[in-house]
Amino acid sequence: MKKAKVAIFGASGYSGEELVKRLAQHPLVELCCLTSRQYAGKKASDVFAWIGRRSSLTDLEFTEPDVPSLSALGIEFAFLALPHGVASEFAVPLLAEGIKVIDLSADFRVKDPQVYKYFYKHEHPAPGLLQKSVYGLPEAYRDQIRGAKLVACPGCYPTSVLVPLLPVLRAKMIRLSSIIVNSLSGVSGAGRKADTDLLFVECNESARPYGLPSHRHLSEIEQELSNAAGEPVIIQFAPHLIPLSRGIITTIHADPVPEMTAQSLEELYETAYGSEWFIRLLGSNRYPDIKNVVGTNRLELAWRVDPRTGRAILMSAVDNLVKGAAGQAIQCLNIMNGWDEALGLGI
Amino acid sequence: MKKAKVAIFGASGYSGEELVKRLAQHPLVELCCLTSRQYAGKKASDVFAWIGRRSSLTDLEFTEPDVPSLSALGIEFAFLALPHGVASEFAVPLLAEGIKVIDLSADFRVKDPQVYKYFYKHEHPAPGLLQKSVYGLPEAYRDQIRGAKLVACPGCYPTSVLVPLLPVLRAKMIRLSSIIVNSLSGVSGAGRKADTDLLFVECNESARPYGLPSHRHLSEIEQELSNAAGEPVIIQFAPHLIPLSRGIITTIHADPVPEMTAQSLEELYETAYGSEWFIRLLGSNRYPDIKNVVGTNRLELAWRVDPRTGRAILMSAVDNLVKGAAGQAIQCLNIMNGWDEALGLGI
Amino acid sequence: MKKAKVAIFGASGYSGEELVKRLAQHPLVELCCLTSRQYAGKKASDVFAWIGRRSSLTDLEFTEPDVPSLSALGIEFAFLALPHGVASEFAVPLLAEGIKVIDLSADFRVKDPQVYKYFYKHEHPAPGLLQKSVYGLPEAYRDQIRGAKLVACPGCYPTSVLVPLLPVLRAKMIRLSSIIVNSLSGVSGAGRKADTDLLFVECNESARPYGLPSHRHLSEIEQELSNAAGEPVIIQFAPHLIPLSRGIITTIHADPVPEMTAQSLEELYETAYGSEWFIRLLGSNRYPDIKNVVGTNRLELAWRVDPRTGRAILMSAVDNLVKGAAGQAIQCLNIMNGWDEALGLGI
Amino acid sequence: MKKAKVAIFGASGYSGEELVKRLAQHPLVELCCLTSRQYAGKKASDVFAWIGRRSSLTDLEFTEPDVPSLSALGIEFAFLALPHGVASEFAVPLLAEGIKVIDLSADFRVKDPQVYKYFYKHEHPAPGLLQKSVYGLPEAYRDQIRGAKLVACPGCYPTSVLVPLLPVLRAKMIRLSSIIVNSLSGVSGAGRKADTDLLFVECNESARPYGLPSHRHLSEIEQELSNAAGEPVIIQFAPHLIPLSRGIITTIHADPVPEMTAQSLEELYETAYGSEWFIRLLGSNRYPDIKNVVGTNRLELAWRVDPRTGRAILMSAVDNLVKGAAGQAIQCLNIMNGWDEALGLGI
Repeated sequence: MKKAKVAIFGASGYSGEELVKRLAQHPLVELCCLTSRQYAGKKASDVFAWIGRRSSLTDLEFTEPDVPSLSALGIEFAFLALPHGVASEFAVPLLAEGIKVIDLSADFRVKDPQVYKYFYKHEHPAPGLLQKSVYGLPEAYRDQIRGAKLVACPGCYPTSVLVPLLPVLRAKMIRLSSIIVNSLSGVSGAGRKADTDLLFVECNESARPYGLPSHRHLSEIEQELSNAAGEPVIIQFAPHLIPLSRGIITTIHADPVPEMTAQSLEELYETAYGSEWFIRLLGSNRYPDIKNVVGTNRLELAWRVDPRTGRAILMSAVDNLVKGAAGQAIQCLNIMNGWDEALGLGI
Repeated sequence: MKKAKVAIFGASGYSGEELVKRLAQHPLVELCCLTSRQYAGKKASDVFAWIGRRSSLTDLEFTEPDVPSLSALGIEFAFLALPHGVASEFAVPLLAEGIKVIDLSADFRVKDPQVYKYFYKHEHPAPGLLQKSVYGLPEAYRDQIRGAKLVACPGCYPTSVLVPLLPVLRAKMIRLSSIIVNSLSGVSGAGRKADTDLLFVECNESARPYGLPSHRHLSEIEQELSNAAGEPVIIQFAPHLIPLSRGIITTIHADPVPEMTAQSLEELYETAYGSEWFIRLLGSNRYPDIKNVVGTNRLELAWRVDPRTGRAILMSAVDNLVKGAAGQAIQCLNIMNGWDEALGLGI
Repeated sequence: MKKAKVAIFGASGYSGEELVKRLAQHPLVELCCLTSRQYAGKKASDVFAWIGRRSSLTDLEFTEPDVPSLSALGIEFAFLALPHGVASEFAVPLLAEGIKVIDLSADFRVKDPQVYKYFYKHEHPAPGLLQKSVYGLPEAYRDQIRGAKLVACPGCYPTSVLVPLLPVLRAKMIRLSSIIVNSLSGVSGAGRKADTDLLFVECNESARPYGLPSHRHLSEIEQELSNAAGEPVIIQFAPHLIPLSRGIITTIHADPVPEMTAQSLEELYETAYGSEWFIRLLGSNRYPDIKNVVGTNRLELAWRVDPRTGRAILMSAVDNLVKGAAGQAIQCLNIMNGWDEALGLGI
Repeated sequence: MKKAKVAIFGASGYSGEELVKRLAQHPLVELCCLTSRQYAGKKASDVFAWIGRRSSLTDLEFTEPDVPSLSALGIEFAFLALPHGVASEFAVPLLAEGIKVIDLSADFRVKDPQVYKYFYKHEHPAPGLLQKSVYGLPEAYRDQIRGAKLVACPGCYPTSVLVPLLPVLRAKMIRLSSIIVNSLSGVSGAGRKADTDLLFVECNESARPYGLPSHRHLSEIEQELSNAAGEPVIIQFAPHLIPLSRGIITTIHADPVPEMTAQSLEELYETAYGSEWFIRLLGSNRYPDIKNVVGTNRLELAWRVDPRTGRAILMSAVDNLVKGAAGQAIQCLNIMNGWDEALGLGI
């Protein structure tokens, strides 16, 4: 089968690096271009120590981001692993050149520019594209992703929150105002930034809540929950930083509307995700664990119904850099090309 | 001032070791006896590598637990750092000998033997003592601790949950059925047990919920919350294991009843804890962090009122082995003796 | 191409699990049998949480080790991930049945049963096989591995020590009595044992030398160094335990005999390893780092010649469970079958 | 007893913070002044989250470093926790004002300005003071520290290397050219710098050698070893970064000159350190462990003589921020004042 020519913008951050690592081994991808302002002119193998000398990447060099030259190279897909606000600068000309864009930033996730402004504190830089983007959560938008030109991949927290909640909201099984989400994230979620708060000594033997009560990811979480519920949903969201490199645990509490049981949740999830490659249903006896999903594109999902309170407890685990970022983006690429959805993503 | 003669039962576990370390430096304590079935006959300095040769402990030997011999030694206080179910075996004869007992196990925390049985899965071994014990949370029961013969020190999670919630419940500021507690604990909370689930490789780069939905600590948490509220309180409690040695972060969500503000919480907490040595009020802008309390007897307390949901968010951090165990027990000892409450506890 | 039928003995330890994970994705392997006395009768997917339900492993069950039944299944290769002393019990009947054995234990690494006894403290259980085994370090014994019936895979430390030293000894470039090796190992090197010394709390924020001065791995290290040197070699070896899950760093000091330079080492290593898939030469400016080899079958190799002392410093990094165990074993399997040496090993 | 008035320059780094923490509890110290260009004008309790509101530090503010104002305050001792090159800028005027200086930087450790220049790559800023400073290792220079006006506290690695080696060199028990030192250090040794190499994600699950072959600490190590030996000593030194916050393990190999035995080392160390408060002799069966010294001013020391090679192996553990920095500086302060050497240092 013909390989697709692919570029990665912002290839030197954690999500970018994960994209490089996985796309380099993807059997139907030709990785043609890595951009990085910081490393332009350097060989990828001098920046990423894991690139062996027999790798196809050994001689690839980082370049300055330059859209017209990509077009000349015959690039068909561009992944944007750039900060929010910067991604849209490149998405506009890339789309104009006919290059499909898979954006890992927050720029095209939220449909309403007012909501974007509320959470991101600046005007949306390309509001005209918002309605054209597809939210890149395959388990919810597979059909739309198939024909999309601009995919906005979900954030890491949103992936861990939406997969458990969407089926429950579609089935109107919980009281909407009762949703309380607690999440724990590894430190790579904050990116590769020279910030003293992210130093080893500051994060090791440390755990702390942060971003309360209005973390930016609420914008896309509530948008998608509202879509699923058919009415506006406002939730409580408490993220925490914990001392590990990768991974998210999310624990959700909500009051059921009807007589919910562990069994009814089992049936709901089996119907929703029973044929999904990357959702692992753990049921009502096991627990998700970050160590079981790190390095994979899987999301683990478990649930309980508390006999004492009647409340539902939904739990998930993902690797924030894989199912929460690069892996999910590649899953979208596979869908856009009509390929096996697991290509390049292991098991 | 005359020193008090003290024994520690079960001195080789994590809480026991922390007691040894701190009581050895307590200016008004003479540490006379360490019991450990595992190490009986061994010198403490052969078991605890941190004991320097000039320490007063250098020549102290572990002994088999033997109540009559303690009495002969003139022991006035016995700390029990034993598993639940075992502690009460010793508490009964110790009290009969006139030795005051500061128990770190769960045996005397819950007043109702039926509740104990529900959560601990066996009959209470000494129900007659339940009404005589005082719950050893100085910030709530200082006066009763002063005259107590049997103090039941709170568990680590309960300390982190009760300190934030008790004043709020006493002031009837939240809807009782709305309390949702998420906690993150370091691995020492599980004790020094040769269990493969607690191996370094299994806990490192791992995070996981556990004990849902009926963790044993709910028994004492709900008892104390009910006392504060004046009516039965049932809460949701989701503990998680995270990869650090010591410390707990607790994040509590609840719906306020009246018009609660960050300012009203500030006033409430200032009144409740403004003169407490070991409660650090962080207010509504800062976050608690495990690394700031590890090795101390302090509890950090912060709060938010979410303008979008109206909900209150209360956050705390403690060292599970200090304010959550050994430190709190020593704080109780100081109170029982009328000493400066911070003796032997640093600041 | 026809797939090879494979069994793994002792599949539930860390090395065994790594074999399962990788062989399940090997394109020319059919994983037919996992033995584990502890888990016999359980499904692999109930023991290994990472097995997704679409994996080929989902329905595989652990069995009791039983050699005759393997033969009936048409098994051609058996990997032994068993403790030393136990592996040889199975190797003998497996070989008798015509099944090739790739042993990850120490049982067949040392040719001299007296040396085995000195370091392992018991008589060798099957001395007759010692001369028939091939030491499974492909970079040194590729030709012999190709035709072997019994491969004894090197230990994790030996791999990290031998790859840097063998070419230097063959070229007679260092004074043999001057070799001093320091190694740092992650905790998985000690295996999945319910031992309090391996608990998270005991290993976290801890680092310590151990096994001095006669660690068992010296037996195979010195045997292979002596072979390379053509005369007996005795070295100094200081292993240390450090707080990470996987990986080894080895730093070797030795006095050069002739005028050694960084350049002459570069040429030596380029000749020895320039065409090796899994040896990454870092040269005399970069440093090996565990995080760059974890999860890979690569060994990173760097060197310096100290202008002040004249001494050579050789440094390596490997993942103890991959190039130091399961990955190397699979590399041997590929060689024994004449397959591409990197099959199932990523890059 | 009258308290000594003390200032800390550079109080916001890791060593500075450790000084603040410990001097705040020192019974004979009045901590009058904390300087920090970064935090000047801020309250110490806003920068250091561990400062409780009842601490004597609660109202202390960071100031710009200003020597004349210190003099007016009656400051008698200044601790310099500043980068090398900066410390000497302040030492000169402080000494001129009659304020005694305890310097934690490298500025006054090396007596020979040429050696300083070789290792630190710039001219020494105040060569005239070099001969006046005393090397602040109490176990070697207690008498000189007593009367010193300028104490140059040893680096963290040098402390861990010199304590084991000095007695052996004084007794001429090893061949001088044979000394090979391997050290492992926690990440705080690199200071609180916003450097991507020190990020949690870059250091976690990572271990790596660095600074080979000419780490700066060699300058003072070799100076002191040469003094002890009475002739020039050149050693090999290989530092490594390992994933923990604090602590150093050092493992030293050397060839004995006479018939050295574990027993003769025992006698040597017992004579040298038998009456030292902060040296813990572990003998020839136990191993030092970082977790046993973290938070203490102790150095653990163990040794072996290898019967196979005849070589001596010396091992030590220290907390780099305590015995390797702030604790040792306070030990010097106690000596300079004729106080109990353990004041403010726990046991």
